[in-house]
Amino acid sequence: MCRWAAYLGDAIFLEDVIAAPSHSLIVQSSQAREAKSPTNADGFGVAWYGDRPEPGLYRDVLPAWSDTNLRSLGRQVKSGLFLAHVRASTGGLTSRANCHPFVSGRWSFMHNGQIGGFEKIRRALENSLSDTLFEQLEGTTDSELFFRVMLGEGLAQDPQGAVSRATGRVLEAARRAGIEPFLKLTAAFSDGRALHAVRYATDDQAPTLYTAAFARGVGRCIVSEPFDRDGRTWHEIPQSSFVTMTRDTTSIRPFAPATSRWALAS
Amino acid sequence: MCRWAAYLGDAIFLEDVIAAPSHSLIVQSSQAREAKSPTNADGFGVAWYGDRPEPGLYRDVLPAWSDTNLRSLGRQVKSGLFLAHVRASTGGLTSRANCHPFVSGRWSFMHNGQIGGFEKIRRALENSLSDTLFEQLEGTTDSELFFRVMLGEGLAQDPQGAVSRATGRVLEAARRAGIEPFLKLTAAFSDGRALHAVRYATDDQAPTLYTAAFARGVGRCIVSEPFDRDGRTWHEIPQSSFVTMTRDTTSIRPFAPATSRWALAS
Amino acid sequence: MCRWAAYLGDAIFLEDVIAAPSHSLIVQSSQAREAKSPTNADGFGVAWYGDRPEPGLYRDVLPAWSDTNLRSLGRQVKSGLFLAHVRASTGGLTSRANCHPFVSGRWSFMHNGQIGGFEKIRRALENSLSDTLFEQLEGTTDSELFFRVMLGEGLAQDPQGAVSRATGRVLEAARRAGIEPFLKLTAAFSDGRALHAVRYATDDQAPTLYTAAFARGVGRCIVSEPFDRDGRTWHEIPQSSFVTMTRDTTSIRPFAPATSRWALAS
Amino acid sequence: MCRWAAYLGDAIFLEDVIAAPSHSLIVQSSQAREAKSPTNADGFGVAWYGDRPEPGLYRDVLPAWSDTNLRSLGRQVKSGLFLAHVRASTGGLTSRANCHPFVSGRWSFMHNGQIGGFEKIRRALENSLSDTLFEQLEGTTDSELFFRVMLGEGLAQDPQGAVSRATGRVLEAARRAGIEPFLKLTAAFSDGRALHAVRYATDDQAPTLYTAAFARGVGRCIVSEPFDRDGRTWHEIPQSSFVTMTRDTTSIRPFAPATSRWALAS
Repeated sequence: MCRWAAYLGDAIFLEDVIAAPSHSLIVQSSQAREAKSPTNADGFGVAWYGDRPEPGLYRDVLPAWSDTNLRSLGRQVKSGLFLAHVRASTGGLTSRANCHPFVSGRWSFMHNGQIGGFEKIRRALENSLSDTLFEQLEGTTDSELFFRVMLGEGLAQDPQGAVSRATGRVLEAARRAGIEPFLKLTAAFSDGRALHAVRYATDDQAPTLYTAAFARGVGRCIVSEPFDRDGRTWHEIPQSSFVTMTRDTTSIRPFAPATSRWALAS
Repeated sequence: MCRWAAYLGDAIFLEDVIAAPSHSLIVQSSQAREAKSPTNADGFGVAWYGDRPEPGLYRDVLPAWSDTNLRSLGRQVKSGLFLAHVRASTGGLTSRANCHPFVSGRWSFMHNGQIGGFEKIRRALENSLSDTLFEQLEGTTDSELFFRVMLGEGLAQDPQGAVSRATGRVLEAARRAGIEPFLKLTAAFSDGRALHAVRYATDDQAPTLYTAAFARGVGRCIVSEPFDRDGRTWHEIPQSSFVTMTRDTTSIRPFAPATSRWALAS
Repeated sequence: MCRWAAYLGDAIFLEDVIAAPSHSLIVQSSQAREAKSPTNADGFGVAWYGDRPEPGLYRDVLPAWSDTNLRSLGRQVKSGLFLAHVRASTGGLTSRANCHPFVSGRWSFMHNGQIGGFEKIRRALENSLSDTLFEQLEGTTDSELFFRVMLGEGLAQDPQGAVSRATGRVLEAARRAGIEPFLKLTAAFSDGRALHAVRYATDDQAPTLYTAAFARGVGRCIVSEPFDRDGRTWHEIPQSSFVTMTRDTTSIRPFAPATSRWALAS
Repeated sequence: MCRWAAYLGDAIFLEDVIAAPSHSLIVQSSQAREAKSPTNADGFGVAWYGDRPEPGLYRDVLPAWSDTNLRSLGRQVKSGLFLAHVRASTGGLTSRANCHPFVSGRWSFMHNGQIGGFEKIRRALENSLSDTLFEQLEGTTDSELFFRVMLGEGLAQDPQGAVSRATGRVLEAARRAGIEPFLKLTAAFSDGRALHAVRYATDDQAPTLYTAAFARGVGRCIVSEPFDRDGRTWHEIPQSSFVTMTRDTTSIRPFAPATSRWALAS
């Protein structure tokens, strides 16, 4: 399990979320409160949108609390849309390529959760990817592969539908492999315009997800766990929800897995 | 292209090959003479056999010349059979998982060369692996995948045959993908008893390979390029050769690709 | 605060202390029980004695739990005398040069504790070093500097006396700087023959220190906290003690700071 | 010896200097033309000015050519004033703290050159620093220490005078240590407003230094060696020169060492 935080709104310094709050993401890297383990020290990353359609990406393998580059970047870089993540590995090696967020073109993605029995269905999921998406694989995590599956299910055209079908594809792959489908999915992703998040688990015990207004209404956050309690009101997002934030609105809709074309075709 | 050196014989300090010679492997990491580029600074690694059937493995992403751990390990660790490698990436990321040698059980493997058009045949080769071998994949290099293919072709039972068939499988995969087969393969590998090496290329321009007796006959080396000229006699291994060293003998046989069962079955 | 473990006896695999026990040093890197914080993830290191008078040294900046090289080294390397450490920084950067153990010639040293007000006395302590010892400084930690001061106080001739005088020098430097002397010192060090440890604090609250026989009497350990409870009997070393282990004996003597020549001379 | 490039002008992407030109700084990390060695792979760094008076700083120990973060940062971050460096160590360890640029408050500094006999005068130079400047020392390079000495000589009030006096202090320290003064100094530094550079050597063989207008006059560069030959005109700065660039002007004045107050006072 991991911790993450995403922001959309007026441009702020990355550190306003990553380092400055009393329970900032960097603090959560060593002292998370609502995770299975308090330690999220298997690497970290941040993807931020600026002058280009594609995000910048900084990931490294040290614990977030000791990375001097992250501190400096957080102090210097301003962005109106960014995703930041501290990792607690559920299996994959500690390497840059296994750190979140993952990026593909304009899209960035980060995840807190797990695909149960991943080693039994990894190959089937990889084989369900197009050549182009397969070649994009850089690491060995279930999270990155799920992101590539989402892209293959049409993330650009229909974000919620793509995640629903990607989820369905994972569940179907588990069934075909003769194992009990088990998925925990609390993820955020963006194309540089809207910010999306999903909270879902096959056992209705998905990791927590919260939203709040940031600093007098100029922006909004969506996070694994609140990064402060200083007068800010945090709203817990219910299980089986799909959230879409734009600069003006936040919508929360029910989320459920869907049947992917892949399942039908095979 | 990369540089590597392997040793079999009486136990010596790793540094006797890695660091001490005038043109040691560490020197070759910055000033190789017989490689396309003099710089081999995209990570390094050493696998050595000791009290267990399985080798120890130390790999890291710094240039070999600046890694203080490698220097210290080389001074402290003695072994009668080891493989050491400095990497010049032909594409894969610089990460520990992409550094040679690769290890599986008792086997270790390192490579200098390239599979042409790898991105076009990677998936087919991965799919030809058994589940067990597929799950062992840790990085994204052509070299690691070739090693897993060799294991699947029966490396333990018939080393030369396995490499011949693995080579055949790569060539067949290229043909099926509609691309011109192109392979450069100068590799060494061991099960902790014998030390094997192969030199082969589809264009008969495989990277160089040399053997020599080490220090008054207590052992032998097989290397990408000689690590000194101090009276030692280096023998160049011809193109299309398969070398097997034991403590007592060195055999050099002609090497050619063979048809793999995989090619027949598909 | 940090965690460490040292061993002296028949040669065993490093992993027998580092990784195999139920509460091994690697487990302590994330779940220490008797430290202020459970997390000791600001790098790690191991110094081990083998065929040379000088120890080998492997240190790196990742958390010990995720370092694949440490796992492999632990499985492969056997030693009859080694020191291993997982770090929780009290200030210094996370870099290899700031990771314990520190090595100088035959000597290795590792520490759990802190020199209070170090930034106010660092320069005076550095200036008290000989040119040779000053030039050995590689990092910026209070621990490394304390080790160099010990060497300057005659560690090779009189280990306990040297540590007493080094402690005195630190206390004197604090007094001269007009600050309250504050020192926590739970350290181990060796010249490759005997294994020494000290437990001392100006407030009599030095970090814990334990000894135990290892595996049916072939060796002994001295550790920050017990690494298992499987029938082994752990002895807590009292505050203000100096321990010396040889292969045959363990002596525990009272320890107190002494006046160093440096203090007298200035 | 190292390679570096600095830019002042309209905000551009860092990659416009670091990665895009035909002979960009990243290319120079493996194939420098006017340096003693073509390889500058002992770490890298970039300091850039943005919305704060203090610069952002990203430094790491990999070769610049293989660092994915540097590529992404270069594509995403725009700045009107930045300093970038690829390092070839003349002695210090490869660690982040030893990578250029160095930063202190608003000031950033990077260097290509060497203080001869540094180990013999390091302590005297460190002792000449104020407590505040001494405490800022993070690494062990001659370059960082020279920067702290410059700060102590009044860099903020009189940049050229401060560098002259710092140079004088180094030469005086060498004389006092009984060694022949030897200094090669081709450095750039900034307070976030002007960009300064110096080219000086005791043997009149200082590493090269060039300036050029950047991209149709919106900015200017000052570099170790030209990063392209595409129609741009590069001006070689003569030995013993001090360069100051603002957005409107470039001044080149003769540079010579001066007597520092420290030398007088001692």
